Amino acid sequence: MHVRVGVIGTGSIGEGHVRRIAEVVPGATVVAVNDIDTACGIGVAEHYHARFESDAMGLILADDVDAVIIASWDPSHEEFCIAGIKAGKYVFCEKPLAISAAGCRRIIDAEIAGGRKLLQVGFMRRYDEGYRELKGVVDGGRIGAPLLVHCQHRNKQPSGAKHTTDTLVKRALVHEFDVARWLLGEEYVLAQWVGGRSTRHAETDIRDPQIVLLETKSGVRIDCEIFMSCQYGYDVQCEIVGEDGTVRLPDPASIIMRQHGTRSSEVHSSWRERFAAAYEVEIRDWIECVKAGRLTGPTAWDGYVTCVVADACTVSRQERAIVPIKAGDPPAMYR
Amino acid sequence: MHVRVGVIGTGSIGEGHVRRIAEVVPGATVVAVNDIDTACGIGVAEHYHARFESDAMGLILADDVDAVIIASWDPSHEEFCIAGIKAGKYVFCEKPLAISAAGCRRIIDAEIAGGRKLLQVGFMRRYDEGYRELKGVVDGGRIGAPLLVHCQHRNKQPSGAKHTTDTLVKRALVHEFDVARWLLGEEYVLAQWVGGRSTRHAETDIRDPQIVLLETKSGVRIDCEIFMSCQYGYDVQCEIVGEDGTVRLPDPASIIMRQHGTRSSEVHSSWRERFAAAYEVEIRDWIECVKAGRLTGPTAWDGYVTCVVADACTVSRQERAIVPIKAGDPPAMYR
Amino acid sequence: MHVRVGVIGTGSIGEGHVRRIAEVVPGATVVAVNDIDTACGIGVAEHYHARFESDAMGLILADDVDAVIIASWDPSHEEFCIAGIKAGKYVFCEKPLAISAAGCRRIIDAEIAGGRKLLQVGFMRRYDEGYRELKGVVDGGRIGAPLLVHCQHRNKQPSGAKHTTDTLVKRALVHEFDVARWLLGEEYVLAQWVGGRSTRHAETDIRDPQIVLLETKSGVRIDCEIFMSCQYGYDVQCEIVGEDGTVRLPDPASIIMRQHGTRSSEVHSSWRERFAAAYEVEIRDWIECVKAGRLTGPTAWDGYVTCVVADACTVSRQERAIVPIKAGDPPAMYR
Amino acid sequence: MHVRVGVIGTGSIGEGHVRRIAEVVPGATVVAVNDIDTACGIGVAEHYHARFESDAMGLILADDVDAVIIASWDPSHEEFCIAGIKAGKYVFCEKPLAISAAGCRRIIDAEIAGGRKLLQVGFMRRYDEGYRELKGVVDGGRIGAPLLVHCQHRNKQPSGAKHTTDTLVKRALVHEFDVARWLLGEEYVLAQWVGGRSTRHAETDIRDPQIVLLETKSGVRIDCEIFMSCQYGYDVQCEIVGEDGTVRLPDPASIIMRQHGTRSSEVHSSWRERFAAAYEVEIRDWIECVKAGRLTGPTAWDGYVTCVVADACTVSRQERAIVPIKAGDPPAMYR
Repeated sequence: MHVRVGVIGTGSIGEGHVRRIAEVVPGATVVAVNDIDTACGIGVAEHYHARFESDAMGLILADDVDAVIIASWDPSHEEFCIAGIKAGKYVFCEKPLAISAAGCRRIIDAEIAGGRKLLQVGFMRRYDEGYRELKGVVDGGRIGAPLLVHCQHRNKQPSGAKHTTDTLVKRALVHEFDVARWLLGEEYVLAQWVGGRSTRHAETDIRDPQIVLLETKSGVRIDCEIFMSCQYGYDVQCEIVGEDGTVRLPDPASIIMRQHGTRSSEVHSSWRERFAAAYEVEIRDWIECVKAGRLTGPTAWDGYVTCVVADACTVSRQERAIVPIKAGDPPAMYR
Repeated sequence: MHVRVGVIGTGSIGEGHVRRIAEVVPGATVVAVNDIDTACGIGVAEHYHARFESDAMGLILADDVDAVIIASWDPSHEEFCIAGIKAGKYVFCEKPLAISAAGCRRIIDAEIAGGRKLLQVGFMRRYDEGYRELKGVVDGGRIGAPLLVHCQHRNKQPSGAKHTTDTLVKRALVHEFDVARWLLGEEYVLAQWVGGRSTRHAETDIRDPQIVLLETKSGVRIDCEIFMSCQYGYDVQCEIVGEDGTVRLPDPASIIMRQHGTRSSEVHSSWRERFAAAYEVEIRDWIECVKAGRLTGPTAWDGYVTCVVADACTVSRQERAIVPIKAGDPPAMYR
Repeated sequence: MHVRVGVIGTGSIGEGHVRRIAEVVPGATVVAVNDIDTACGIGVAEHYHARFESDAMGLILADDVDAVIIASWDPSHEEFCIAGIKAGKYVFCEKPLAISAAGCRRIIDAEIAGGRKLLQVGFMRRYDEGYRELKGVVDGGRIGAPLLVHCQHRNKQPSGAKHTTDTLVKRALVHEFDVARWLLGEEYVLAQWVGGRSTRHAETDIRDPQIVLLETKSGVRIDCEIFMSCQYGYDVQCEIVGEDGTVRLPDPASIIMRQHGTRSSEVHSSWRERFAAAYEVEIRDWIECVKAGRLTGPTAWDGYVTCVVADACTVSRQERAIVPIKAGDPPAMYR
Repeated sequence: MHVRVGVIGTGSIGEGHVRRIAEVVPGATVVAVNDIDTACGIGVAEHYHARFESDAMGLILADDVDAVIIASWDPSHEEFCIAGIKAGKYVFCEKPLAISAAGCRRIIDAEIAGGRKLLQVGFMRRYDEGYRELKGVVDGGRIGAPLLVHCQHRNKQPSGAKHTTDTLVKRALVHEFDVARWLLGEEYVLAQWVGGRSTRHAETDIRDPQIVLLETKSGVRIDCEIFMSCQYGYDVQCEIVGEDGTVRLPDPASIIMRQHGTRSSEVHSSWRERFAAAYEVEIRDWIECVKAGRLTGPTAWDGYVTCVVADACTVSRQERAIVPIKAGDPPAMYR
């Protein structure tokens, strides 16, 4: 089976997926693309020999589209996901799954109504070699029971869409929420948002950096730093402290220079570089899953849970309180 | 001037100071030692050619004792410090300065009454090469204004005196409280204690690891992990995140082996090894200050502030609340 | 243009190329494979939906084969390369290009006679990210003129074809010969082979490790260690010492564990893992070049030069002498 | 016993020893100093409360001098060493022991004639923590039999006395000759000098960098790079490749900064900083040995052997040949 893919949203992330399917993922072709910015969409369509669909819904319903990638504006995700699911298409939706937990729930309802798991959320970190090795260590019991997780998520400076204090959590830190939960295989019960002194490099009115503390059912404590304007580079760190040892993500495999009194190596400059391989593995794996008719990646439920966590962070920030996280039990389809 | 030192308490820490003065610090001699365990005290006295004083107060008041090191049981610190100050002797007191903030205050009152700064508290980290380099970076403005500090304080397994959930903060984490305050040059305003899942290696009824969050006046956030039974070694880490970059303590300069599929270096096994050089520099510096008649190390006020912070942590733990830290303004002598 | 590839030799290296073209390189298909081991060849053919050609020459001449990959037994390379070139096909030949410098010369003659560069040699290190960054540093003048190159090429233990003292140089160290020459952009003038104490893990009668010293026209000194049975893993290192600084290959980006008193990360276990990405980039680049009708990778001349160097090493070993390297000037096609 | 030390030569190295004995080594006092530069000698004498002896021989013979440190001009070492030995004084002589192997032999003869080991040579690397750990690994059999040793000795730029091509080996690389022999516990049999392209930063007419290859009786190969004008810092590296693994010196324990796209730590700037602790341990150990009446450090024989190796390097360079090293068997006193 050859998978014919339609892509909605041809911005940076969306075009990346189009390019990957065209150039490095065998067994799939992008047949159609759509973007609210027609010029942008047509440009991508022409470059990759796909047709431009002026209507997103038309793309979803097109007979020659087997599977849909949604990389459009966040508020549009819910509608497109539900349409895709109802049309019986496989859907790969970039995070966030929806802009509210309620929106995620509606997607889940649609999926349950259809009776088949059709949707995967774009939490690409689960496909990163380093995180996968961390998971292997934890799951293999090599450091005993995990007790603490220290996460840092640092970005050189904001680019693209304008950020608010809220979106630093909802668009960036959700990656930590998902990946730590996946690493630990456990649900969260508490969230606390912690502000502090903001960098002078932050945009006006934005709290940057921020810290979020989470606690899981068994009591594992996760602290997550998000720093959107750290200036020095793109740097994602994660250390898991277990009963019998600790394990952490590698530093980048950069050449080592000795010069001017220092020994130095390079830090990544952006998420594109840092997670390039993870995006490839993610899309390759998704295509394989679509061919096999059985998805194994992050589900709508995973997308929903991260929304619930992010919402709890907002409440914690507004009320200066430690807030319970109540995602409830997953429906049978997601267990 | 040659400094004649009396040492009260010849346990592990106290004997270390006796040995240092005897073997590596010039310009000083240990003339007398005291310990509540007579056999232990006599043994150290004989080994280092000092006399054994059976009475601590006698040692403090002895004519041939210019300066006193107090490394006895924590609850005895206050009485000995005050006696030393009243006798006009220089006093070096191991942390904690006293077992309560009120006790520290009484020491401060004695010192102020005497009109001269005579007391130094044994926060040896301020003399560690790595921490000094961190301070140089911060003070030199090389990473801009500090915004966050991440600290980990890990110990292989408890040794010596029995620990409680409280003493992990009061005897171990106080080092972080002092050194972060010294690095930042700022006072704390808030403390929060955070527990979590305890390791199976912890002694019964002890919460281990624990996390403490602090906030300074300007909003810098410090998170401190204490993990007394981490199993893998003694490991103290500190990363300062600034507006223009980050800086962290070095890993130990260990030889690097490549064997059996891994590239490995050694972690320290105990604080003795990790801070051996810092203890030497500390005592050497203290002797120089005594000779010069002007102390420059951590003061009674510094000892007091860490007590106030530790007390706030206890309250935070008991009341599950974020607790203000109110140390007040330092008296003129300590400004 | 879609490139139809025929592959001769479906052993470990050859099958890897088949798999890459099938799974990760777009724009090309393996249409036919051949192997002297019929069962092996048929197995690979079936798995990747290619036809099995029982005759290598038939595969080379087949109308539906645009380009040929030669990964067969070393002594067969020369014949197949010449046949491919005469048939006007693009040829990708694994190293060594031929088993003698004279054989390489005959391939060069065939290519010159045909009037077009059609052949690329499989020196995949030129496509490795780390080596490319080294070259960027050197070419950018960032460490001034290179003066020394230190190379280590370590393999856990021999696998596959039986080695001799000679083949450690001719099959393994040739990678260093090629990549150092490429990094420096300079020709060699002298070679010296240096033996020493052999490991007890070496196969009988094999000198392992060995060292080869090279000198370039401008006087740059290269020392190359080959150690085929180093036991601990697969480890390739390269440090270039320049007038204004040094630069070296990165260590692998492995997760870092702290456990049992050590801080450790993993070393690669084999060349497959170490150069997986380089092989992909190499084949992808070759396919692009074939499509564009213009090869840019390592040429027959490069293959010939490494043969000349390896031959000089053999003479140096046999005669215990420092031996001149005389490859002559490259024909116009290779300048 | 308190050791009364006389120091000949109060330049950089000599003054360092005076300072160490005055400030950090207990149980010894510098009573007298001498320097051919009277003003320099008097300055040091006054600063450290020692008397200035205008005559070196007078210092050696003075009744209140128990032990002599010789840190004067290289050509004067032989005469002073022999005088000290004849006077029955303990002698600590900086390397080189003498400026010729014959000179070293005369010192050895004097020592044998006296019937007691009185002389230690200043090869301080044997007291460096890193090298000691390397030796522990080798002696403990942890990497099996050593097969190769790779050494780099890099200096930022020459300082002090003017260098020649020859002195780079005789004054700098002798440290490698001694320490590798000590690490391996084996004698050398062959030496080869290898030049190459010199840096533009080298002084006129000096070959810099240079490489020396050595072979031991059992066939272990040692390659030593000396690079006196490497520009980037002071950097000494050593990797021992054994049958079952490798081990190398640590990089400096420097704080780690992340800034401007790089992760960097500091390299040492000079041998003073790099070997500060080794010099301290060396002198402390020597004083202890003098007190105990039994030297355990590098002997006159060790000083002689490094001279023989250095001479072989000179011959190799002049004759462009691989040269045998013939130090002969050590007299009974040195076995």
